[in-house]
Amino acid sequence: MSDSKASGAVSAEARSVPELGAALSNTGRWGEDDEKGTLNFITAEHTLRAARLVKTGRTVAASHPFVMEATPAKPRPGWHRMLYRENGTSACDAIMIEPHGSEITHIDALGHVSMDGTVYNERPFSQVITRDGLAFGSVLPLAEGIATRGVLLDIPASRGVDFLERGAEVNVADLERAEEWAGVRVDAGDAVIVRTGLEARERVTGPMPHDVRSGLGRDCIAWLHERSAATFGGDCFERLPSGDEKYTHPLHSVGLARMGLVLIDNIAVEDLSAACAEELRWEFFFVVAPLRIPKATGSPVNPLCIF
Amino acid sequence: MSDSKASGAVSAEARSVPELGAALSNTGRWGEDDEKGTLNFITAEHTLRAARLVKTGRTVAASHPFVMEATPAKPRPGWHRMLYRENGTSACDAIMIEPHGSEITHIDALGHVSMDGTVYNERPFSQVITRDGLAFGSVLPLAEGIATRGVLLDIPASRGVDFLERGAEVNVADLERAEEWAGVRVDAGDAVIVRTGLEARERVTGPMPHDVRSGLGRDCIAWLHERSAATFGGDCFERLPSGDEKYTHPLHSVGLARMGLVLIDNIAVEDLSAACAEELRWEFFFVVAPLRIPKATGSPVNPLCIF
Amino acid sequence: MSDSKASGAVSAEARSVPELGAALSNTGRWGEDDEKGTLNFITAEHTLRAARLVKTGRTVAASHPFVMEATPAKPRPGWHRMLYRENGTSACDAIMIEPHGSEITHIDALGHVSMDGTVYNERPFSQVITRDGLAFGSVLPLAEGIATRGVLLDIPASRGVDFLERGAEVNVADLERAEEWAGVRVDAGDAVIVRTGLEARERVTGPMPHDVRSGLGRDCIAWLHERSAATFGGDCFERLPSGDEKYTHPLHSVGLARMGLVLIDNIAVEDLSAACAEELRWEFFFVVAPLRIPKATGSPVNPLCIF
Amino acid sequence: MSDSKASGAVSAEARSVPELGAALSNTGRWGEDDEKGTLNFITAEHTLRAARLVKTGRTVAASHPFVMEATPAKPRPGWHRMLYRENGTSACDAIMIEPHGSEITHIDALGHVSMDGTVYNERPFSQVITRDGLAFGSVLPLAEGIATRGVLLDIPASRGVDFLERGAEVNVADLERAEEWAGVRVDAGDAVIVRTGLEARERVTGPMPHDVRSGLGRDCIAWLHERSAATFGGDCFERLPSGDEKYTHPLHSVGLARMGLVLIDNIAVEDLSAACAEELRWEFFFVVAPLRIPKATGSPVNPLCIF
Repeated sequence: MSDSKASGAVSAEARSVPELGAALSNTGRWGEDDEKGTLNFITAEHTLRAARLVKTGRTVAASHPFVMEATPAKPRPGWHRMLYRENGTSACDAIMIEPHGSEITHIDALGHVSMDGTVYNERPFSQVITRDGLAFGSVLPLAEGIATRGVLLDIPASRGVDFLERGAEVNVADLERAEEWAGVRVDAGDAVIVRTGLEARERVTGPMPHDVRSGLGRDCIAWLHERSAATFGGDCFERLPSGDEKYTHPLHSVGLARMGLVLIDNIAVEDLSAACAEELRWEFFFVVAPLRIPKATGSPVNPLCIF
Repeated sequence: MSDSKASGAVSAEARSVPELGAALSNTGRWGEDDEKGTLNFITAEHTLRAARLVKTGRTVAASHPFVMEATPAKPRPGWHRMLYRENGTSACDAIMIEPHGSEITHIDALGHVSMDGTVYNERPFSQVITRDGLAFGSVLPLAEGIATRGVLLDIPASRGVDFLERGAEVNVADLERAEEWAGVRVDAGDAVIVRTGLEARERVTGPMPHDVRSGLGRDCIAWLHERSAATFGGDCFERLPSGDEKYTHPLHSVGLARMGLVLIDNIAVEDLSAACAEELRWEFFFVVAPLRIPKATGSPVNPLCIF
Repeated sequence: MSDSKASGAVSAEARSVPELGAALSNTGRWGEDDEKGTLNFITAEHTLRAARLVKTGRTVAASHPFVMEATPAKPRPGWHRMLYRENGTSACDAIMIEPHGSEITHIDALGHVSMDGTVYNERPFSQVITRDGLAFGSVLPLAEGIATRGVLLDIPASRGVDFLERGAEVNVADLERAEEWAGVRVDAGDAVIVRTGLEARERVTGPMPHDVRSGLGRDCIAWLHERSAATFGGDCFERLPSGDEKYTHPLHSVGLARMGLVLIDNIAVEDLSAACAEELRWEFFFVVAPLRIPKATGSPVNPLCIF
Repeated sequence: MSDSKASGAVSAEARSVPELGAALSNTGRWGEDDEKGTLNFITAEHTLRAARLVKTGRTVAASHPFVMEATPAKPRPGWHRMLYRENGTSACDAIMIEPHGSEITHIDALGHVSMDGTVYNERPFSQVITRDGLAFGSVLPLAEGIATRGVLLDIPASRGVDFLERGAEVNVADLERAEEWAGVRVDAGDAVIVRTGLEARERVTGPMPHDVRSGLGRDCIAWLHERSAATFGGDCFERLPSGDEKYTHPLHSVGLARMGLVLIDNIAVEDLSAACAEELRWEFFFVVAPLRIPKATGSPVNPLCIF
């Protein structure tokens, strides 16, 4: 298969980020007006097969609580205020959300990130981003919903450690070892969830700034392409610093802006990891429902993992 | 069963709203500290059985797009602004959400509404509502997720009409006719979704103020209790005006504050209705994932109905 | 004069807060629909005389910078975000303001505080406060502007100390000693500005929670009434705790809700104090321009003191 | 004088906007780190002289009420919500402000607008604008306050008409005719306020979109420079459309980014015009107190005109 060949070549040559983008591009693959990217891998058939993974009904909600107070690690918290109601019998509130950053569990719309001036499907970023929101690649098309197989690749568990060190790089070999350890194989349309044990580590080390962060190495981008993952998320994204000063977030750049790979940042994986261990399976029905916010660059989400 | 008897008595006597609240109260039923109310009807077993309803994988996202511009029908829109990013390669935004009112699809936390000074589980409203949010009955406990059987009771379809008239009342007889017509029976742990055809009507009449609104009559509250519904929602809630000047929203008052009945307001039912008709079944896997917003009175949601 | 007698009686008897409110009430004094309260003391003649105090043109802006990041002393900061502009040549932003609390320099609208169920001019608070804002006593009438004589009563300077201790009470004797020391006498229509040296103290002690705060004793309320002050402000308001559990802020309650005394909270007085000492006069032209925010409970202000 | 010569040359040659910017630049004039621009023309002596213009004490607050509901002419209104307070005796609120646009009366910080990549004092815009606000030329330095002579140039009154037509251009000849008619001459340090009668016209024509707007022609920019105006504002700014597709707002570009001319947009001039006519003088003490909002691009203001 050409995809496979392309990606093999990439691993071998360690191409530059733009070359990687060109090699892995899904431009036009689902039509030139497509805004759903790799969610197109999820057919009704996939959803059906994934639903059959439900065997006990156990459900894990894999999001973090919103951070509403500033901390050193989260200097730009949300804003939540109770509103006055005349009737005095009901309680209402207003909540300010910024659906990105390193704490809130959120989905990235495909137009959130550009690379060399264009976003997914080769739309010029200058035309996509407007004062009123995204004219292309907003979160709205993603809000038709994601219901597919989720696969947890639990890197530290597969290695027999509690967590990866700060700034550790996860490579294809790690992903495949975790697959083997769990007895699953990531396939087209799957939601790939990678655990590095960030929270487990911070319970030991205390919170640390997220400018240095364990996460995927560059070879994993091609692997996600090769496997036709529908979405990627976890307690990591790319390893930071990535080593590229210009393309500081290669997975975000190549993934969102070239592959149309839908990213779900900051999935809460600790409870999920424990549940997988107890259920003795690392695959489950994975349901995510982004909010229908017109022209928005992302949405907070609360992914449900149903065993 | 005592529940059934109580409710029969209610229908017969047309008790006052406080009497209805007393008769249908679930205080203490799931422990005095419980904040999940009728979601407790959803056991893992229910989730499992509901997941087995997935037969084609077709998915309908049953929420309305956020309203971000003021209209006569929606005078208090959200606020959405694109934020400046130094890097110039990514697009971010801030979104202000008020998770109640007559347009945004949202879930009500149990502490959202009080009745005669208390909320669910007999907590004094004065202690529940604080300047910083709800001290009890916030949306957080609901954010463990809802995954159960959804049943659409399509009132106009079951009557062979396009929509109910503005301000029409739906009674138990209507609910049961819709059940019969669809060949389903609402049972413990189900999500009950009622369609009155509000949007279908407004496509004909144009938008109309929502102070007069078709919806459930008072007898339906006892019926939802009797059937042990896990959650209720639709394109309606109670009929407005309810006829009671003090308890203007009896379903919200008795439901939230006495039964602990989780409400999902403003579910988008038109596409769902069409899908049910095509699939020829009015039951499906119903998945809702409220956001983990600490102390919040509700959350915007995008319910997924998976066939 | 009856005012003087009433106030003498008050000092002697140490009446309760409601009695004080009744004794000092300005209800109806400027008409039953009046919303400007003690600003009515400022006639064009007062403004003219005050302008003649300008002798050097030196100007001191007596407000604190907005706090935009949470600190222990300021847990509810403002919210400031740069907005994206398509043109790329201009910079815009959005700023969330809450015009009360212990840091932001702001003016209180007369409807901001009620006492025993009514605000200024005996309007029921339940009718004044609505979901959309204040129906009476908003900041709008105050926004016609304040231009009058400002008098700084520099309590620590008049005592020859750097600052008052935390929680120290300022009494009428202190106010009058400061007048005498400065060679000024507060008269009808004046803006009374009291300095206790809060910032000077916190430069020594570090920031301390403001639940214990030096400020005016109860006798000063009658004094402000007797002198027909147009507005009161400073680095203090009432001494906290006030010693009254029910009426925790007697100056705010009696002042705003009975006297219609316009309050300017958290005036920045350190530079002003230094300027007065250099100019060797403690009176100046005092100009405050609240923003025209319809129905608002207050406004941030930046008072200008012109010598 | 060289300024005069330069400007005379400009009028004669109708130079391009960049040439105009170069000719009128005040770069370095008050130091390379200066952020106050033309406010430096206001010395204490000016303030003193201006205060002496106070002869009756009459005060006009020259700002418009905030627009809090969307209208066709104001699609991006502010956001104002009453907040819940536990004590039940005080009323508080939150107010979202965007201090630019065509309705809110506001002051522009010098860093608000760039031209050919730089703002005032030749700072690169890319370094000035940051995600957290303006690193140079914010509103903070302007918040030391403006207290100077205000001069109203009432163009329609001086021509004997009620208002200028939509889109009419005001030229130097108009400004000087208005001076002569009023018997005043704009001089160094003055606040120049121009009235075209926009509101008077819209009372007749109804509100009209502000993309076509009467305002200053390009020759007036040099005139403001020549006269050493400290600030410019009114019911107009530049005439729109300006006729230049690239530099759509020459007065904002050359004024803010080259001259460091502080602009006060959307001053409410109708009451002021009436007051001037009654007082029979078109000069007054003009006091503006921008809020101390760190790094902000502007501030709402309520200018006070004291006669």
